[in-house]
Amino acid sequence: MLAEIITIGDEILIGQIVDTNSAWMAQKLNEEGIRIKQISSVSDDKQHILKALAEAAQRADIILITGGLGPTKDDITKLTIAEYFGVGLVLNNEALQNVENIFKRYNRPLLEVNRKQAEVPANCEVILNNNGTAPGMWFNVAGKIYVSMPGVPFEMKNMMEDAVIPKLKQTLKLPVIIHKTILTVGEGESFLAEKIADIENDLPPNIKLAYLPKMGQVRLRLSAYGGDETSLQDKLEQFAGRIIERVGANVVAGEDIPLEKVILNYMAQREFTLSVAESCTGGYVSHLLTQHEGSSQVFLGGAVTYSNDLKENILGVKNETLYQFGAVSEQTATEMAEGALRQFKSDFSVAITGIAGPGGGSEDKPVGTVWIAVAKAGKTVAKKFTFGNKRLQNIERSAVGALFMLNTLMKES
Amino acid sequence: MLAEIITIGDEILIGQIVDTNSAWMAQKLNEEGIRIKQISSVSDDKQHILKALAEAAQRADIILITGGLGPTKDDITKLTIAEYFGVGLVLNNEALQNVENIFKRYNRPLLEVNRKQAEVPANCEVILNNNGTAPGMWFNVAGKIYVSMPGVPFEMKNMMEDAVIPKLKQTLKLPVIIHKTILTVGEGESFLAEKIADIENDLPPNIKLAYLPKMGQVRLRLSAYGGDETSLQDKLEQFAGRIIERVGANVVAGEDIPLEKVILNYMAQREFTLSVAESCTGGYVSHLLTQHEGSSQVFLGGAVTYSNDLKENILGVKNETLYQFGAVSEQTATEMAEGALRQFKSDFSVAITGIAGPGGGSEDKPVGTVWIAVAKAGKTVAKKFTFGNKRLQNIERSAVGALFMLNTLMKES
Repeated sequence: MLAEIITIGDEILIGQIVDTNSAWMAQKLNEEGIRIKQISSVSDDKQHILKALAEAAQRADIILITGGLGPTKDDITKLTIAEYFGVGLVLNNEALQNVENIFKRYNRPLLEVNRKQAEVPANCEVILNNNGTAPGMWFNVAGKIYVSMPGVPFEMKNMMEDAVIPKLKQTLKLPVIIHKTILTVGEGESFLAEKIADIENDLPPNIKLAYLPKMGQVRLRLSAYGGDETSLQDKLEQFAGRIIERVGANVVAGEDIPLEKVILNYMAQREFTLSVAESCTGGYVSHLLTQHEGSSQVFLGGAVTYSNDLKENILGVKNETLYQFGAVSEQTATEMAEGALRQFKSDFSVAITGIAGPGGGSEDKPVGTVWIAVAKAGKTVAKKFTFGNKRLQNIERSAVGALFMLNTLMKES
Repeated sequence: MLAEIITIGDEILIGQIVDTNSAWMAQKLNEEGIRIKQISSVSDDKQHILKALAEAAQRADIILITGGLGPTKDDITKLTIAEYFGVGLVLNNEALQNVENIFKRYNRPLLEVNRKQAEVPANCEVILNNNGTAPGMWFNVAGKIYVSMPGVPFEMKNMMEDAVIPKLKQTLKLPVIIHKTILTVGEGESFLAEKIADIENDLPPNIKLAYLPKMGQVRLRLSAYGGDETSLQDKLEQFAGRIIERVGANVVAGEDIPLEKVILNYMAQREFTLSVAESCTGGYVSHLLTQHEGSSQVFLGGAVTYSNDLKENILGVKNETLYQFGAVSEQTATEMAEGALRQFKSDFSVAITGIAGPGGGSEDKPVGTVWIAVAKAGKTVAKKFTFGNKRLQNIERSAVGALFMLNTLMKES
């Protein structure tokens, strides 16, 4: 089954916003076995939109359209789609009710332009928007499905999850697909592939394995197609079990979640607490953890100690350690981690100190040299990493390295 | 002048990566007065690529292509472009030299597949890749310009800046365009538009004003077209001056740089130092600052104090303050900022405490309530913000609010 995504609006074409919607939609459809043939971003221009719709319909069976549904004059998606199908607009009562409720809730007067948002092409089924005033629209014409949604990410995402994907599965009677994702850290794609080559060879034709690499991590996604769900599930778990056993310590999760969430979940369940001492990562590890709701149950806080003074004052790193071994050293990383454990009274701590670059490197310690230490009562582990010369990549890779070490230490407890 | 962008490769179509290249390219071209008509992401499929090239050439004069230039079999962009133009591949000596140099530098053996990377369609001009093995390719055929570049962001960006944009300007004799960007914080687009309506009306036809909003900030971009560069520059500065005067305290910069960089630059110049005390932003403000090279000149560090214990222990917030007013209060924010100033011995400090959500809200202090304080010796300013109920947005908006307050206090010094 093939789909296309069309995003409408000038914001993407002038580079004002990055199109994150399409990647999200592509991933969700991919998980249902729907392949994306093309993603097109086009301007708020009638002829251009009409042409893009016709071209997409030639290539694919499902056409998902986002954007151009606002109340202003330059939002012409709805009128253009009506013209494409040769129908007029009609007022939809449910959609009107939704608009009225939203305006009532925020105590704002309902203008005519807002009322107009409840008008939709006569041949569509309305998909209610629980988060905004523009309704989604579903069309099933000449064997092709078209869905028009707002471009606001959380409005689109809710519609996709609550309505569009279930309706696609039902309408198209999509075959059962089950996925099982294994998150690995610390080994490259080709190394992993070699390690599990024989298991991959044993996979039956209806189970596929995909390698999804991302910044020091590789997700292994097993997908099983067709037939009976329970027996598919069993088979998937069998193969996943073999892979997990083989890959061993590089496996951090048997589900599709971010690395830091693995740590938060595990620690929350065991009522462990965590603190962080960051130098070169400059708050990035703390940010990764605290972007997740509920992180306060585990994460007590931390220190961002860019200067040596703060390493001494907040974390209790000894002056002579800094003097003798330098800020980027096994000794300093160790004292930072142990200092965090002691000062912040957490069960676990992680410390990162390195040279993110582009300045600050030396022959001994070039840009990209990073020491990471993790600690719990009675045990500290420190390790040196050598990354490259790109500042942001060094920050991200250090964070992944730190979380991976923390995961290993944590799972011993 | 119209351009199109075609990105080639399955990673975008399966949602594995977000296409950030296109937005960057669109922005750069836009600044040169080149409008993007369409962005298309297509798969590594010969027929599909051929069709996309032909369609783009019908709509635009410049076609920029990224991706599919790797050494593996599924990278078919080069062969497909050769077929599109009906030419064969030839070995390019300069490109080969570049490949050989890279392999020598990393001490790896040169394989035949790598040598092949130096083969290019016979009708192209090679654009050297200083950061990788795949050469860029420039075609000028039947009045249309095609440029093929690698999909690796930093390789593409360097080629665009060093070669492609200068060559486009020269080849197409693009009219002179000068931009002047004013960064404002804290007021919405429509409010600003009303405030400067008469100035906007005074603009001559060859000067355009664009409003570019982004998370609590609006960039006002003035673009002047054609004619003599010096007199354009003068006119632009005149209008920019009037806008800056009118908008007043909401203007934070007269150039196109991120808000946190405004602060780093100003403080570096005056040798001021900064520390940060974060609760609900959880390290995000520190991360924003430290992602920039040279930030260590200004940023000493900070504390991420999620727990009340750490607010007391690291920042010296009084236990009775937390008890009496709560962690999210003017008093706590003030003591956090003053504590950071005192403990971390910086010239300036900023503190953020709030309820990012989705949990933790109450009737008194609903999710989205944030107190921010900024301090320098002898002066502390605190302010309450009420954001919405989305965790990540609350974190980002709090960071913008904090940096804006810091900017205001800093510029008094």
